[in-house]
Amino acid sequence: MKHILVTNDDGVLAPGLLALAQEMRKLGRVSILAPDRNWSGGGHVKTLDRALRVREFLLADGTTAFASDGAPSDCVALAALGYFKEPIDLVVSGINVGANLGHDVTYSGTVTAAMEAVIAGVPGIAVSLETPEHHVGEIDFGIAARAAGKVVRHAIENGLPAETLLNVNVPFLKNEEMRGFRLTRQGLRVYHSRLDERTDPRGRPYYWIAGDAPTGVPERGTDIGALAEGYVSVTPLHLDLTAYRALTDLNTWAWDEDSENPFFELLVPDKSETPK
Amino acid sequence: MKHILVTNDDGVLAPGLLALAQEMRKLGRVSILAPDRNWSGGGHVKTLDRALRVREFLLADGTTAFASDGAPSDCVALAALGYFKEPIDLVVSGINVGANLGHDVTYSGTVTAAMEAVIAGVPGIAVSLETPEHHVGEIDFGIAARAAGKVVRHAIENGLPAETLLNVNVPFLKNEEMRGFRLTRQGLRVYHSRLDERTDPRGRPYYWIAGDAPTGVPERGTDIGALAEGYVSVTPLHLDLTAYRALTDLNTWAWDEDSENPFFELLVPDKSETPK
Repeated sequence: MKHILVTNDDGVLAPGLLALAQEMRKLGRVSILAPDRNWSGGGHVKTLDRALRVREFLLADGTTAFASDGAPSDCVALAALGYFKEPIDLVVSGINVGANLGHDVTYSGTVTAAMEAVIAGVPGIAVSLETPEHHVGEIDFGIAARAAGKVVRHAIENGLPAETLLNVNVPFLKNEEMRGFRLTRQGLRVYHSRLDERTDPRGRPYYWIAGDAPTGVPERGTDIGALAEGYVSVTPLHLDLTAYRALTDLNTWAWDEDSENPFFELLVPDKSETPK
Repeated sequence: MKHILVTNDDGVLAPGLLALAQEMRKLGRVSILAPDRNWSGGGHVKTLDRALRVREFLLADGTTAFASDGAPSDCVALAALGYFKEPIDLVVSGINVGANLGHDVTYSGTVTAAMEAVIAGVPGIAVSLETPEHHVGEIDFGIAARAAGKVVRHAIENGLPAETLLNVNVPFLKNEEMRGFRLTRQGLRVYHSRLDERTDPRGRPYYWIAGDAPTGVPERGTDIGALAEGYVSVTPLHLDLTAYRALTDLNTWAWDEDSENPFFELLVPDKSETPK
């Protein structure tokens, strides 16, 4: 029986985590270790400059969960390094309130928790539910939990490709409106941030990163496109960020034109070594 | 004349930032906006739940710098959104004490600052100096600054490929030991983390993420391999994390075997839509 770590970035008491844990209990033995507060937008963190605390919480269904004062990725690290006596076989992160699409993935605590799993050699799956701004109070996590259950069951049965995590996003639709699953690539987010400068009561400026919620380019084949068409999006991600195509361009730069000293004399690169 | 934003993740008063800023002044007009404290390992952060402060600092060479209480990526966002009156043409981040290689890139404040630049539509370059643990007091940033100067000058002259940032790592070598530059792909980091459980004076446990510094696989063609051979490593990175090869594997999963209701009936994916 698989030992599944459930975590999230909305905090251990978030209802999305409970819904996910309940679904995962159908598929394996579940341990919960999640942040003790909301870490949304907190990025891929490794806390090395302070110690971490872990406390026990009781969830709404009477089950036990653990929470640390670290980031979601710290929770995964703690578990992968042996906080629970039994090794972790799979990390499932979510269900996040709000989709994690396109460029969101490197900011997202939900997704970076799954990244941390992959770095620790454990499969990782991130699950997020698209949530229009004015519908936060009307969320039914049941559909997203079932979608997560299906993906995780397949991942357990088939195994995930090496070094790969899955980024699962569920559209904000009723059950009968759902069209199924799509395998997708990462799409293009469009951010609408702007700077909001204000003045405090003592006359000093402070700055909000303000602006409307991000939108995206709903291109077919992408995560954003799949949600726009009513599908659950399943995007395999890896941690090799190399821009292989750019290597060719950069190779044309005149790297050795200015050999004013030994440091700059021998220069780049043997094309045979820059692969694929 | 290019307007270059210099930032870092070691904090505005770090000597690596000053060395970088001085080198960049040879290439353009420099503005500095960096974190007011060390953010190492802090990941790709977007601070939306609190306002940010910006304060003015005087650097050791008598020039002016600005510092915010946000992450490196927040500093880039503030600048890209108009904190300085003139638009930013290029973001250069560093010089970090310690290399950012392999899987380090999503944790690294230095690299995620350059990612934030790319998301804002501005070229980004991260510069890090390999620093053996017991040599932190003996760092000469001059060599790394000159390497950065060379890369940035080429980037200004040739332009960076779209949606691409550069991750530059300089080996810890004397000038005469440097062998030049290598274009590389991201290599494999090997982390040696372990959990160090301790007990506080009140008998309660707390946990350090402990262990030796990460090493790496010094494969030829990779960032880690280039440093091991005495070269400055220049790795082009992008923010499309899609694991394209994994799409093919995942496509073989029996996604539609359990169509117990409409939600699960129509299933994945039209192969023609999952590209390259």
